[in-house]
Amino acid sequence: MLASDGNHVHIFSMGGTIDKDYPRLTAGYAFEYGHEPAASRILKTHPNLGISFDVTSVCRMDSLDMSDLDRNLLLDAVCKILAQRPQCSHHARIVITHGTDTMIETAQFVQKRIKDNAVIAFTGATKPERFVDSDASFNLGCAIAATSVCSAGSVVICMNGNVVPAGKCIRDEKSGLFHIADGNEMMTTG
Amino acid sequence: MLASDGNHVHIFSMGGTIDKDYPRLTAGYAFEYGHEPAASRILKTHPNLGISFDVTSVCRMDSLDMSDLDRNLLLDAVCKILAQRPQCSHHARIVITHGTDTMIETAQFVQKRIKDNAVIAFTGATKPERFVDSDASFNLGCAIAATSVCSAGSVVICMNGNVVPAGKCIRDEKSGLFHIADGNEMMTTG
Amino acid sequence: MLASDGNHVHIFSMGGTIDKDYPRLTAGYAFEYGHEPAASRILKTHPNLGISFDVTSVCRMDSLDMSDLDRNLLLDAVCKILAQRPQCSHHARIVITHGTDTMIETAQFVQKRIKDNAVIAFTGATKPERFVDSDASFNLGCAIAATSVCSAGSVVICMNGNVVPAGKCIRDEKSGLFHIADGNEMMTTG
Amino acid sequence: MLASDGNHVHIFSMGGTIDKDYPRLTAGYAFEYGHEPAASRILKTHPNLGISFDVTSVCRMDSLDMSDLDRNLLLDAVCKILAQRPQCSHHARIVITHGTDTMIETAQFVQKRIKDNAVIAFTGATKPERFVDSDASFNLGCAIAATSVCSAGSVVICMNGNVVPAGKCIRDEKSGLFHIADGNEMMTTG
Repeated sequence: MLASDGNHVHIFSMGGTIDKDYPRLTAGYAFEYGHEPAASRILKTHPNLGISFDVTSVCRMDSLDMSDLDRNLLLDAVCKILAQRPQCSHHARIVITHGTDTMIETAQFVQKRIKDNAVIAFTGATKPERFVDSDASFNLGCAIAATSVCSAGSVVICMNGNVVPAGKCIRDEKSGLFHIADGNEMMTTG
Repeated sequence: MLASDGNHVHIFSMGGTIDKDYPRLTAGYAFEYGHEPAASRILKTHPNLGISFDVTSVCRMDSLDMSDLDRNLLLDAVCKILAQRPQCSHHARIVITHGTDTMIETAQFVQKRIKDNAVIAFTGATKPERFVDSDASFNLGCAIAATSVCSAGSVVICMNGNVVPAGKCIRDEKSGLFHIADGNEMMTTG
Repeated sequence: MLASDGNHVHIFSMGGTIDKDYPRLTAGYAFEYGHEPAASRILKTHPNLGISFDVTSVCRMDSLDMSDLDRNLLLDAVCKILAQRPQCSHHARIVITHGTDTMIETAQFVQKRIKDNAVIAFTGATKPERFVDSDASFNLGCAIAATSVCSAGSVVICMNGNVVPAGKCIRDEKSGLFHIADGNEMMTTG
Repeated sequence: MLASDGNHVHIFSMGGTIDKDYPRLTAGYAFEYGHEPAASRILKTHPNLGISFDVTSVCRMDSLDMSDLDRNLLLDAVCKILAQRPQCSHHARIVITHGTDTMIETAQFVQKRIKDNAVIAFTGATKPERFVDSDASFNLGCAIAATSVCSAGSVVICMNGNVVPAGKCIRDEKSGLFHIADGNEMMTTG
């Protein structure tokens, strides 16, 4: 399976809640980041996955600590993958897992700078993937589907059951929910 | 939140692997169906869901045992919900959970008969939702996202990480994977 | 760590509910047995286990299908391990995972035939270990603890939160609960 | 079922890793304590529990932050329960969930002060119960079994697969494992 076909998804991990794990044997309250991005664990345990994927760990941090230096590292990593793709009729399917606090900011940062034949879907989690009641697998499913079905050129945020164009996405501070700025949650692709 | 807005998803359960549970205290090898559809359990435990939903249990059976009588029950249930919606600018978001063996058949059955302002996404699971390593949550995420982002009128199958139009979907008997008939997994919506 | 010390547990798997898994890609309602005994999976994922262990898969069957031929295979396997132990001051710690329907019968069969310096704890599960809401890990914890703390020569059944001597154990047909014949659940060891 | 019989377990929660949960919607790295002790969640979801139980939440803190004031609160809570028991032939079965860092200290504190007809088993977890790969259920199973089978008057620590008398228990700082001071992990009860 070539990375240039429609069955391949490129995943980039930026840390955030989805990737947090419990520290081994350390006293206290703090989280640590595990060695493997959550998206990789989820896809590897899917019992019948029909896509191939590669995972690039760009950084491992709380998204409140993220600067444009980190966002440029992400850009570089994405562009490097895109540059390696042969000319082909399929758009690139790209998923970026990210902390929720600055997800919109990073998505808009990326949208302004990447104009390739790609769909870029951001997702993350409210609870780390290692938790029994995590939303990581559900949210990653949303993002993978969005890369399958959105129009080339789309940069979208896939959280809480909706797919919202990055340019129109806002977050409600109290509920933490991502929604579309004009109150209409749905993206029209037709 | 009104059922007519873009933040509401109507879910219909047809049984299948996703809904199977282990029998309580009974000897032997057989599965049973639990009292609550898997989709309902998944969405109720999502820690920060931004959509509302209703779940209708149409039937609880292995999809190999399903007949067109059962498919007509599904049609009736979907049409009843669609008829209750007020005239509005949003398409209805409909997810149907279903056994994998005849999912394509039912999806094509539905596609021929429902012409409403709706996106209908079929999904299911390779392992029951009750299993630790189930794909149910991931697949449901795919389907929910598809109803957010596909063009009105679409009927799609959301399995194994891809979103495939029902009319072009085939299943590989050996691998169990669903894919698009012409070998191009991606649906173009633009 | 030597297998003769008090930090080692010998585990024997006889199949039963605890070991059942969902068949891969097969249609229908039946379970299959996975390739790895559940006890092995549980202990391998324990984040800080202080015991070493070996696992012997004796048979993989529903305990209703078990005959004394299978029970003799278990005896042979246990005796082989016991014969390999050096003379030492510690009793052997032995856990046998088993289907619930004939667990008492097998435990009493073993008790009559093994007179070594060992504690043998039977356990199993009401729901397969692969289920989210399985009792497998809890029950295995009970059995491992029983092998740590019971008097040498004990053969016990560790189910539903109690430790019951095999010779006095009965099962309530309706509830499926194991309890001590005289209504006193507790074993006295002092 | 009377709290005075051998089928009842009294549980006291002192916080610690086992009870930690992920904060809802809050930015940052810190854990919080959930509203329900982990032991309660585990026992409520056991599919076929044969014991009844009550849970008392004494405090919710990292055990490094615990003082003798908190330990006296625990003593008071345990003594209150013990005082309510009728005279009976069964020892009281008591489980105390606790952070690992000062578990031995608290167990020895309790052992010096409680001389009742009881078995007191301390346990906890290396990973919070909310984690997919937690040892909470296994460890609680160990502790519940210990209260079933140890001699009245015992105060034991049930961690990492062993049951160790509180008075002889030490913890290896590097591995975090609890073991018996003389290198013999097993407690002899006979």
